[in-house]
Amino acid sequence: MNEHFTFEILATDPVSHARAGILHTPHGAIETPLFMPVGTRASVKALTRAQLLELDAQIILSNTYHLYLRPGADLIAEAGGLHGFTSWPRPILTDCGGFQIFSLKNTMKLDDEGVSFDSIIDGSKHRWTPESNMHIQQQLGADIIMQLDVCAPYPAEYKEVELAMRRSAAWARRCRISQDNPRQALFAIVQGGMHTNLRLENIERLKEIEAETGLFEGYALGGYSVGEPHDIMLESIASITEALPQDRPHYVMGLGNPTSMLASVNLGIDMFDCVLPTRTARLGTAFSSEGRLNLRNARFARDFSPLDPECTCPTCTHHTRAYLRHLVQSKEITGAVLLSIHNVHYLLELMRKARAAIIEGSYQSFLKSWYNAPAANDY
Amino acid sequence: MNEHFTFEILATDPVSHARAGILHTPHGAIETPLFMPVGTRASVKALTRAQLLELDAQIILSNTYHLYLRPGADLIAEAGGLHGFTSWPRPILTDCGGFQIFSLKNTMKLDDEGVSFDSIIDGSKHRWTPESNMHIQQQLGADIIMQLDVCAPYPAEYKEVELAMRRSAAWARRCRISQDNPRQALFAIVQGGMHTNLRLENIERLKEIEAETGLFEGYALGGYSVGEPHDIMLESIASITEALPQDRPHYVMGLGNPTSMLASVNLGIDMFDCVLPTRTARLGTAFSSEGRLNLRNARFARDFSPLDPECTCPTCTHHTRAYLRHLVQSKEITGAVLLSIHNVHYLLELMRKARAAIIEGSYQSFLKSWYNAPAANDY
Repeated sequence: MNEHFTFEILATDPVSHARAGILHTPHGAIETPLFMPVGTRASVKALTRAQLLELDAQIILSNTYHLYLRPGADLIAEAGGLHGFTSWPRPILTDCGGFQIFSLKNTMKLDDEGVSFDSIIDGSKHRWTPESNMHIQQQLGADIIMQLDVCAPYPAEYKEVELAMRRSAAWARRCRISQDNPRQALFAIVQGGMHTNLRLENIERLKEIEAETGLFEGYALGGYSVGEPHDIMLESIASITEALPQDRPHYVMGLGNPTSMLASVNLGIDMFDCVLPTRTARLGTAFSSEGRLNLRNARFARDFSPLDPECTCPTCTHHTRAYLRHLVQSKEITGAVLLSIHNVHYLLELMRKARAAIIEGSYQSFLKSWYNAPAANDY
Repeated sequence: MNEHFTFEILATDPVSHARAGILHTPHGAIETPLFMPVGTRASVKALTRAQLLELDAQIILSNTYHLYLRPGADLIAEAGGLHGFTSWPRPILTDCGGFQIFSLKNTMKLDDEGVSFDSIIDGSKHRWTPESNMHIQQQLGADIIMQLDVCAPYPAEYKEVELAMRRSAAWARRCRISQDNPRQALFAIVQGGMHTNLRLENIERLKEIEAETGLFEGYALGGYSVGEPHDIMLESIASITEALPQDRPHYVMGLGNPTSMLASVNLGIDMFDCVLPTRTARLGTAFSSEGRLNLRNARFARDFSPLDPECTCPTCTHHTRAYLRHLVQSKEITGAVLLSIHNVHYLLELMRKARAAIIEGSYQSFLKSWYNAPAANDY
């Protein structure tokens, strides 16, 4: 930790690990638990800066892999980093890009020292080491950057998961040593699949690294929400959160289903990100208090009620299901925009409500009413 | 004219036909000259209601052909008309849909009584008469509706243009007789291609109809901006605007090039609409004080200046050419959104400036500086 990234815990739930906090960054504070909208290519798909500010998104994500390939980290550095490039005035987090590279199974070659891969844009050859990845993320200039990690697929052989975890831990050390800009927080990533012993071993290794080289400003859990059953994921998270340093933010990467998020908050998780709200919006699907709604469904054709009667977002304030269905059926871009606004609002608001409940000391009753409502089926 | 649609002319240019006015409608006044953004399918492509209000769009267009086919005029009537369906709080104009039908050359059959056509969605058979078209536009409930007209292609045989004009005039009469909702203004459409004698004959016929059946609330010029050279169009418009009733708004349909709009204002035109700003935006092209900019051009890759340094729109206030180029190259929806905001603002603002100049009595010097600037090449 350093002076630019203090993490205050304001309240903890008396009977669970849920907590409400504030993480200070050079571009302002973020209030946890929170959802971070994903702007893979330096743009939260279909949304503008003004719309994201209106929704009170506190931090957005971008992806190092995509931005490194296009427009290039040099160009973004020249623009003044991602803040200058996008004009987003609040905190930004960059993912290291490892997850994207490891999904390129055919062209990716991994060794102890780093990873070689081909560009999805022009097939050109590239190689990253933990050190070069830190340099790229320094050029991008996000407030929070992620260590280069190795993410095993799910399911995978135990040996493969173990090797990925050990390489991740070794790379965490190299990232921590080479990352020396105090205005960027470095988060470690815990791997180990659904194997509690591997996850705990990874956490132990990270603590050893911290003792030698300095603290990570946050702990992320990678390798979840990659296709495993919901219950197995939550069981695995439950088995390790107590081992995490409690004075640092805990971030489950890639998780964006409402019920899984609330259950994870209960286990002590503070931060989430996912493309789910914007991706499903482009497919015509909306989160709602009634559960997920597919607006292609003919039953909405003459439904002149708001998208979600319980929602206060600009889309629900002004537009009916019938109109939104018409936009989706007509493939109007505005349909994707309006549903993205709603879906992003939905997850931001869900976390704001969870946070308020934790601070009020009522998180367990909040969770209980959630599980009794139809939206709970959205995990 | 009726009490709901008074047209006040506030100022006229001393040496041209340019004029500044206000047209009152049941959903508020619109200030002319003005540009009307097009929302073909009840959505100005890529833009939200909030963005259009922020840009101060005073009226938007929708298209009867597209809405009649999907979601259907009955459904929109059930939603409370287009205002209820879209929640747009300001005036709306519906085009009659004739132009769209006549572009379906293979499946369209025209006779003196009406037109038969196939749906582009499912191939189903449809027939419109002037009376049924008025009924549909009444269901859609726009403030301003257009007579069903017949638009000859360009170029076309004289005989074909003449027949289209005569049918249009005959249909104007039938529309005027069957349109009896005082809360909807009916605009006549003048056809006749580039033949001044046919245009003038059409205007005479419309005046005869008015003497018998009541006034049209506005006069539109159809059949321009359909592929003819710029100069021929302006010459033709110049030859007929004096013959139009001067106490009614004059509207050139489908025109959206900045220079052509300003030249037409000089000839006495008050209203314009065009898909150009939103269509070119989706292709990565922006209007600007330097002329049209294609953001795919590599010269913008590291251009960290605003899209248009002279523009005050939200896009130009916050975003650089380099960022917008990145969004366009990455096919990000937000790129289409931000360029649509800019392009629509550009034409709205152009007309606001023209209006201010007319009111100030400086329209000729405004026009002169326009022609001396690089943007004048955009006609």
